[in-house]
Amino acid sequence: MKYGIIGSGAIGGYYGSKLARAGQEVHFLFRSDYEYVKSHGLQVDSCDGSFHLDVNAYDDTADMPACDVVLVCLKTVNNGKLQQLLPPLLTPGTLVVLIQNGIGVEEDVQRLFPDVQLAAGLAFICSAKTEPGHINHQCYGSINLADYSCRDERRLQTVVDELRQAGVDAGRVEYYEARWKKAVWNMPFNGMTVALKCQTDELLKHPATRRLIRDMMMEVITAAQHLGVKNITEEFADKMIQMTDNMTPYSPSMRLDYDYHRRMEIEYLYSRPIATARQAGIGMPKLEMLEAELKFLEAGNMG
Amino acid sequence: MKYGIIGSGAIGGYYGSKLARAGQEVHFLFRSDYEYVKSHGLQVDSCDGSFHLDVNAYDDTADMPACDVVLVCLKTVNNGKLQQLLPPLLTPGTLVVLIQNGIGVEEDVQRLFPDVQLAAGLAFICSAKTEPGHINHQCYGSINLADYSCRDERRLQTVVDELRQAGVDAGRVEYYEARWKKAVWNMPFNGMTVALKCQTDELLKHPATRRLIRDMMMEVITAAQHLGVKNITEEFADKMIQMTDNMTPYSPSMRLDYDYHRRMEIEYLYSRPIATARQAGIGMPKLEMLEAELKFLEAGNMG
Repeated sequence: MKYGIIGSGAIGGYYGSKLARAGQEVHFLFRSDYEYVKSHGLQVDSCDGSFHLDVNAYDDTADMPACDVVLVCLKTVNNGKLQQLLPPLLTPGTLVVLIQNGIGVEEDVQRLFPDVQLAAGLAFICSAKTEPGHINHQCYGSINLADYSCRDERRLQTVVDELRQAGVDAGRVEYYEARWKKAVWNMPFNGMTVALKCQTDELLKHPATRRLIRDMMMEVITAAQHLGVKNITEEFADKMIQMTDNMTPYSPSMRLDYDYHRRMEIEYLYSRPIATARQAGIGMPKLEMLEAELKFLEAGNMG
Repeated sequence: MKYGIIGSGAIGGYYGSKLARAGQEVHFLFRSDYEYVKSHGLQVDSCDGSFHLDVNAYDDTADMPACDVVLVCLKTVNNGKLQQLLPPLLTPGTLVVLIQNGIGVEEDVQRLFPDVQLAAGLAFICSAKTEPGHINHQCYGSINLADYSCRDERRLQTVVDELRQAGVDAGRVEYYEARWKKAVWNMPFNGMTVALKCQTDELLKHPATRRLIRDMMMEVITAAQHLGVKNITEEFADKMIQMTDNMTPYSPSMRLDYDYHRRMEIEYLYSRPIATARQAGIGMPKLEMLEAELKFLEAGNMG
């Protein structure tokens, strides 16, 4: 299968180069790194073993071949560009995997491309682009794929299989459950580390914010349950808190975006799940407040 | 009548010196300013006309005479000291007026002094202590007194009358209504200017926080209504927002406390009203979140 990678940064660069290194045909779209990668290739410093790779690099999807599978690894704030970026890569059978954060992403992309087969990719990885053409994969690295509108079940499973052959811990999960479970962690921690300019461990150390984090998790869980999402119960909140207790102090992606004065993924991490819950008659008052604080902080941060 | 002032800062120093200047017998308790005021007197720079005054200054209430009226103008974070400070000033008929912020203050002081007559003082004033013995009264200056446990109605009215004779815009209000009305403004603006490190105008400029401020006001109004407090309706929220739109950009006292690394009045401005509402079965989720954020920020700020 031919793979296309849109957004070859910390995530797309990592999974794409794992596939390419295992012998798959992978075509990478770069933005600012294009010239560097064209002449120097891609360097992946990884906790699982570092490697260097010459890759098929492009700075325009118009120059890329049509692909069987496209991994979209942009930040969702750039999803407006997909309308221009995606079409050259599409065939009637192309599977587009959105390795992105939040709730409602597939819905919106499907609206732009009604006939495209979509899947969600839920990555559990600590990885960063440290300089042009350099990816620093610190730890974890698993990815779960979830079917959203796939007509060709075998193709989705082939992606999972080929990722596994490339040494990636890949699996399959149920779409709604996976997206909402991820929101249980993402919604409290991403925003609160920005609102209080701190890391995950500090939030759990103070009893007031520890309780607030749990309240927020319960807002997500209650909403998910009312939306008919199965298998998310109160115990999942405790499990997530315990997991975070055991993590190294961590700055989630939204905190990094804020610190580097980049746009934050407020829309899909907050506004959409909150609106979705509200349509079902469920309020998320604390997460609504966090959404408002983030919008205020972003306005001051991007000025 | 003999007046005692406990806490002779921006508020106590102002109202006390207005009374003293009008010929009332006023005894002032000072802390750090004692030596300075003892030798130099009190300077009041006021929008209504500046003046200088030699005052009866003390650094220990044990040296003060028993008083007919005591104005308590401490920050509520120091109310633990009242058990020591108040007794020397009390007679069986003394009226203690708590010119302090928040909900539940009178209840707690009454528990310490079950037989003392209490009133609340709700000051609407911009005033600051700028240096030792110097009070800078910028604008406003009215004060409303509310009966809490007064057995001698005439004494309370006399305080109002004598304040008026001293040129202060003084009046009477109903206790619960006045305390909760003040909370409608205080709870959103005090904490949010700390949480987002901004002033009142910025909160109202961004649509997300403008709406959040109104949501918070409605949490207070809904709680007050369920607690049986009359005459606070939804229109009051709009009135408070409109009033704040017309104010000069303002840093409420909690923001100043935070900036100067002083303890914030979280207990009576947030924890108590929230607990009071909760006992009546009413949640204040957004203000609960703000309370948690403030506790977290204070822990980092006082370290």
